[in-house]
Amino acid sequence: MSLKRFLPILEWGRGYNGTVLTNDLVAAAIVTIMLIPQSLAYAMLAGLPPEMGLYASILPIIAYALFGTSRALAVGPVAVVSLMTLSAASAIAAPGSAEFIAAALVLALLSGLFLLAMGVLRLGFLANLLSHPVVSGFITASGIIIATSQLKSIFGIKASGEALPELVRTLMTNIGKTNMPTLVIGISATAFLFWVRKGLKPLLMRFGLPARPADLLAKAGPIAAVAVSTIACIAFGLEDKGVRVVGQIPQSLPPFAAPLFDAELWQRLAVPALLLSIIGFVESVSVAQTLAAKKRQRIRPDQELIGLGAANIAASFSGGYPVTGGFARSVVNFDAGAETPAAGAFTAVGILIAALFLTPLLASLPIATLAATIIVAVLSLVDFKTPRHIWHYSKPDFAAMAATIGITLVAGVEKGVIAGVSLSLALFLWNASRPHAAIVGRVPETQHFRNVKRHKVLTDPRIVTIRVDESLTYLNARWLEELVLEQVAEQPAVRHVVLMCSAVNEIDASALESLEAINHRLQDGKIKLHLSEVKGPVMDRLQRSHLLEALTGKIFLSQNDAFSTLILLSDDEETPDPPTDTWMARGLI
Amino acid sequence: MSLKRFLPILEWGRGYNGTVLTNDLVAAAIVTIMLIPQSLAYAMLAGLPPEMGLYASILPIIAYALFGTSRALAVGPVAVVSLMTLSAASAIAAPGSAEFIAAALVLALLSGLFLLAMGVLRLGFLANLLSHPVVSGFITASGIIIATSQLKSIFGIKASGEALPELVRTLMTNIGKTNMPTLVIGISATAFLFWVRKGLKPLLMRFGLPARPADLLAKAGPIAAVAVSTIACIAFGLEDKGVRVVGQIPQSLPPFAAPLFDAELWQRLAVPALLLSIIGFVESVSVAQTLAAKKRQRIRPDQELIGLGAANIAASFSGGYPVTGGFARSVVNFDAGAETPAAGAFTAVGILIAALFLTPLLASLPIATLAATIIVAVLSLVDFKTPRHIWHYSKPDFAAMAATIGITLVAGVEKGVIAGVSLSLALFLWNASRPHAAIVGRVPETQHFRNVKRHKVLTDPRIVTIRVDESLTYLNARWLEELVLEQVAEQPAVRHVVLMCSAVNEIDASALESLEAINHRLQDGKIKLHLSEVKGPVMDRLQRSHLLEALTGKIFLSQNDAFSTLILLSDDEETPDPPTDTWMARGLI
Repeated sequence: MSLKRFLPILEWGRGYNGTVLTNDLVAAAIVTIMLIPQSLAYAMLAGLPPEMGLYASILPIIAYALFGTSRALAVGPVAVVSLMTLSAASAIAAPGSAEFIAAALVLALLSGLFLLAMGVLRLGFLANLLSHPVVSGFITASGIIIATSQLKSIFGIKASGEALPELVRTLMTNIGKTNMPTLVIGISATAFLFWVRKGLKPLLMRFGLPARPADLLAKAGPIAAVAVSTIACIAFGLEDKGVRVVGQIPQSLPPFAAPLFDAELWQRLAVPALLLSIIGFVESVSVAQTLAAKKRQRIRPDQELIGLGAANIAASFSGGYPVTGGFARSVVNFDAGAETPAAGAFTAVGILIAALFLTPLLASLPIATLAATIIVAVLSLVDFKTPRHIWHYSKPDFAAMAATIGITLVAGVEKGVIAGVSLSLALFLWNASRPHAAIVGRVPETQHFRNVKRHKVLTDPRIVTIRVDESLTYLNARWLEELVLEQVAEQPAVRHVVLMCSAVNEIDASALESLEAINHRLQDGKIKLHLSEVKGPVMDRLQRSHLLEALTGKIFLSQNDAFSTLILLSDDEETPDPPTDTWMARGLI
Repeated sequence: MSLKRFLPILEWGRGYNGTVLTNDLVAAAIVTIMLIPQSLAYAMLAGLPPEMGLYASILPIIAYALFGTSRALAVGPVAVVSLMTLSAASAIAAPGSAEFIAAALVLALLSGLFLLAMGVLRLGFLANLLSHPVVSGFITASGIIIATSQLKSIFGIKASGEALPELVRTLMTNIGKTNMPTLVIGISATAFLFWVRKGLKPLLMRFGLPARPADLLAKAGPIAAVAVSTIACIAFGLEDKGVRVVGQIPQSLPPFAAPLFDAELWQRLAVPALLLSIIGFVESVSVAQTLAAKKRQRIRPDQELIGLGAANIAASFSGGYPVTGGFARSVVNFDAGAETPAAGAFTAVGILIAALFLTPLLASLPIATLAATIIVAVLSLVDFKTPRHIWHYSKPDFAAMAATIGITLVAGVEKGVIAGVSLSLALFLWNASRPHAAIVGRVPETQHFRNVKRHKVLTDPRIVTIRVDESLTYLNARWLEELVLEQVAEQPAVRHVVLMCSAVNEIDASALESLEAINHRLQDGKIKLHLSEVKGPVMDRLQRSHLLEALTGKIFLSQNDAFSTLILLSDDEETPDPPTDTWMARGLI
């Protein structure tokens, strides 16, 4: 049972049969065709030799197939993670250098270890710190940076920088050196791929192809662009006219080697690796959940951490670089009919064959074509609709998003994520530290108590009833102290404070201490503190505390009991024990 | 009005008269007597020349009197902040050196600036991150470290270290070099001060002194110890027998000079200064609130930040070191009858006179006597009762406290605070990411819906109703997605999911996105999503979102409406619009 939890293959492996095999094989073939140009392109985006993209699509997929819980997730290099790899490894060495490659392998290992540790220690909840606006803003900004960075390959010029200002500046400086043949290839490939994306599927359907095959065929567009531009490059001798091409890719198995163990390097890459693994995880889980729900299946996020961790560790030992579940390829995998993670394993075999036998065909592939596939892919990540929706829905969330977009664009991916997470958390803590509370009074001729500011209600100058609409925790404990003391300082006639706890699901140790302090301070001012409508589990815990002994007032089952009892008391009279006949009614709460 | 907010002196200054003046003067005289030995002792604890303790008790007090809101708070050097100063400045230079002193001045300036900035930007809520268990654990651990560190002066040996292991090791190494006359003074001073604390007040009362003067007289015990041990030192020529004394203290006004402006030093001291200012603020506010409540007065925490900020900046420009409101001296100030911050200003004058005229008398004061006053003062900070209470009340809170105590003792004050804050926050976020939720059903013959696990209730296999007892935010948005999909994956008969929102006070943008994703995924599985009991303000905001258009189900005013409507539907029937006649009832909610 527990072994099955950690090796989901034992579960789906049992029911494996011929039909499933056929479906998985067909899906694998289609995904392989899609992955070959994508793997090369994303490796290039990450500043790595193209073959590393292929290697990152072999063993990692098999590792995920063994440990992952999603039936359709396709793991491999993706755009945003490639950009984060470029950014992190650039801080160590120049892109393309041996140290840079070593850093990329260490990044894969570290993010694998982080993911594995989070999975084993059940720390997946840390991914919650990336709120939707932050992730969405981060991806939009990353898409803009990636698309801009690829313009250099479209124009055939040099440009560098991890953030927008430097990228734009270097592009502008070198725009005069544009290589015309490269620009022609780049622009026509981009135009073609955009058309494939928007126009090919309807065209194919007009020719009588059903929707799904038409869609899948349209996804093979990049392969056509690769083939045509490679042939054009060879036919017209464009390489001699300054068109940069992929060049010789070694024909080989992935190189198995342990990543560099260097304490200082590990330390410098730890934070980027952590960010990269969490961003990758959040993206991957969201894709996996969407696809699982379509078949009423479930994924287990903690096990997903282990699956992605294993995939990244596999990447680091086999010449790859950080990977995660990709959106586009997973959807293709799902649509093509993949039923189990075995489809992933077959894809890995397909890429392995490509790495062994097809790489010579890619030597004359213009880099501008790969840039075009990246641009078309990432522009779908750039999303200006969500910021507008969030602006209408919630200003604080919009602020977090805007900060993430702005800081990512201007200062780079790591600072952008950190700023977004910090701002979201600060806003959350700020809200949590001043929850909603109301002074309430009795609605005439009912037993209901409502906000005095919104309703005509009965109150008594000697009684203040405060309803707090939130659990009492250390984040709002001091706020509660201030709130109560403010009420009392403003109303000298007050003799009783009632804290109505109908919305209090928890009282932590700090809040308990604050309640004791409030009780003590009110006692100094000759005011009694009472509680009402304390929930069962909260009451159980309070009974283990010292508050109940020290409490100057009583605990009433209902707010109505509290008000009815206190309003009849003269100034110095002891509070009688509260009625208990509402216990029956409360038994239900 | 607004000027009064920032200069509280304008408020209390108006009603100032002869009676108040007399009360303030008496309190100031008593506090001055108490403060002189304390200021010397705490400066020594911080590794600074004794006069810096006096200087830290002059201008800072006046600055606080101008800007602070507490009527009785006595600002100056305190034990825990002195220890934090020692720890932070030790990382820069050896205690006592000129660089060390410069670092202490910069620490005061930086923490003053942080406090001021937090006050002006209303960031006082950040202090909430220090939960009660963390603060309490930190102070206990600091007390143990301080008391241990002072043993070196009691034994007349050398020892060093900011954390317990190093301190104990160096004490053990040098214990053979104990100076006997020093030990005699140290032990008898400690014993005397303990007796003064416990036994003197009852004795004085037995001699007919009323309780309050007896109490205040007992507080002057340290002065008696200082006088007797100084006289003994001179009379028996103990200085020649190896007893270390305070030595010459310059007779002068506080030295006015700007702290060192050195970017690198500032950067290295920024984090310690931030921790120091927040710890100081939390302690100070808690004292101020306790005293204010006794007279039904209020303090304003944001203005307190400004007052303490001004005090620390004043310290940094006048040869002092970081200060905050101290517990013991504030209580003495209050009990001695201080009515306004003017009492503080008079205390400052008292200390100034001491700095100008009394320092020659202190030259032969044995350091062992000061160590004894510190030990007796800080042992009251060490609190083993609170950990026990917290253990009984809440295991997670206990874990945060134990981690704070352990790491502070072993690794020092900064790491201890950071560990405590991080662990508290992690536990809070972990809790917030998996709030309480229940699958509910209808209590027979009522309109109430309760947890199916606790009550015998009516359910329908086609309807799952989930009640979430928490606002929906980014911290629990993904948890909600998983919860709903889990319910649906386990029960193939389900056609309707109802989310009962009676406890939902907020839905942020991330949770909205998750609701949209849930709606979409359920739609893929031919399941409708409904909401019930959505609160007014939440509904208002949802109306600005796109969820309502996309929602496959309806929004019911009451859960009973939802259940009654859905249970009558056949499998593929459209959900009719919900009844609206409960609006009236809801108007009250």
